[in-house]
Amino acid sequence: MDPDAKLAELGLELPAAPRPLANYVPAARAGDLLFLAGHGPMRGDGTPVTGKVGGALDVEQGKEAARLTTLGLLSTLRTELGALDHVAQIVKVVGMVNCAPGFTDIPTVINGCSDLLVEVFGERGKHARSAVGMAELPFDIAVEIELVARVRA
Amino acid sequence: MDPDAKLAELGLELPAAPRPLANYVPAARAGDLLFLAGHGPMRGDGTPVTGKVGGALDVEQGKEAARLTTLGLLSTLRTELGALDHVAQIVKVVGMVNCAPGFTDIPTVINGCSDLLVEVFGERGKHARSAVGMAELPFDIAVEIELVARVRA
Amino acid sequence: MDPDAKLAELGLELPAAPRPLANYVPAARAGDLLFLAGHGPMRGDGTPVTGKVGGALDVEQGKEAARLTTLGLLSTLRTELGALDHVAQIVKVVGMVNCAPGFTDIPTVINGCSDLLVEVFGERGKHARSAVGMAELPFDIAVEIELVARVRA
Repeated sequence: MDPDAKLAELGLELPAAPRPLANYVPAARAGDLLFLAGHGPMRGDGTPVTGKVGGALDVEQGKEAARLTTLGLLSTLRTELGALDHVAQIVKVVGMVNCAPGFTDIPTVINGCSDLLVEVFGERGKHARSAVGMAELPFDIAVEIELVARVRA
Repeated sequence: MDPDAKLAELGLELPAAPRPLANYVPAARAGDLLFLAGHGPMRGDGTPVTGKVGGALDVEQGKEAARLTTLGLLSTLRTELGALDHVAQIVKVVGMVNCAPGFTDIPTVINGCSDLLVEVFGERGKHARSAVGMAELPFDIAVEIELVARVRA
Repeated sequence: MDPDAKLAELGLELPAAPRPLANYVPAARAGDLLFLAGHGPMRGDGTPVTGKVGGALDVEQGKEAARLTTLGLLSTLRTELGALDHVAQIVKVVGMVNCAPGFTDIPTVINGCSDLLVEVFGERGKHARSAVGMAELPFDIAVEIELVARVRA
């Protein structure tokens, strides 16, 4: 199924693609690989989800933050490629969780990303993944996720 | 020397390749690059090595955890490619250590990975590396390592 | 403008390319991608900049450490490629800051890297970026930065 149609079927709307506030770009291409910058969780109103998971946020709120982050990644993919259907494969995801001391259920949080990618892209959404716990993230955002996609020739 | 033969010469047996418990895959290919998911340290009996290095674990135990993690990475490479000899080059390694506060001898820990890769692959095992200290890792595993390999055409 | 000429115009001299102290290499190539190892901040006299940003170091000192780290990355690029002009694009940067608890102005620190890359390479220096806060870094260095560059055919 076409992933843009799948998004519509799921009733999901993508936010505006995030615009970096510094000397970098949301995505850079090398051959058929597209490297996406680290994205953070933005609510529909443009405010970021902040706080440490296992502290100010519980694991479900962390997972929802990872899902919101993934909507931003999808928006960047669509902006860069014109349509999500130009993604041949999500190759690699690095999911970084802003962890309160002792919080280790990092995989559940990042499942908020992985599950959405597979919902939208099917087999093409199955990626190699690392999920890790950070000491701090920019401006205390709850998660930061980057990915590498292979683009159709 | 053939790296599978080298493994046998070293008396090393690879564990079963780890199977992700969520919506992702142990490795994803893009052209001649193979991106491996973050792997953790598994003992022969299938239990993970947990605890912070510089805390519950000392630096030697951390290094051994990195070596165990690397056996899992090798197992994934062999499962994906059929034989380790299809690896043209280990291109990139990111070694992430679950650090107790103040533990900074991160390179010695990750040498447990780099040394084994070079033992098994020789020059083909020499990789660009980042070694860093994490606040937390999934389920308190001691190290997590991901890599990118170039595969023979 | 030629990036080596630009460096000279800026009055910048590159340090000697860092030599890894273990079984890895400063950079590894796969096709037209060049993956650089994590680099740390080295002063002109060869000593590293250490300490946590937001603790022993303030944000400006952290930014300067990121700039010094970038000079090392440029040195490795020139050593590997012969001339910086062989860089077609800086594709991806991961900037990792050694954060004191509660320090979250990570983007400002890593701007010390991004700004210099764009100064030297112009549009070719605009990269996808992740900027994150680490619990610990090797030997307490203030920042560690890795990058992926696309090389001219």
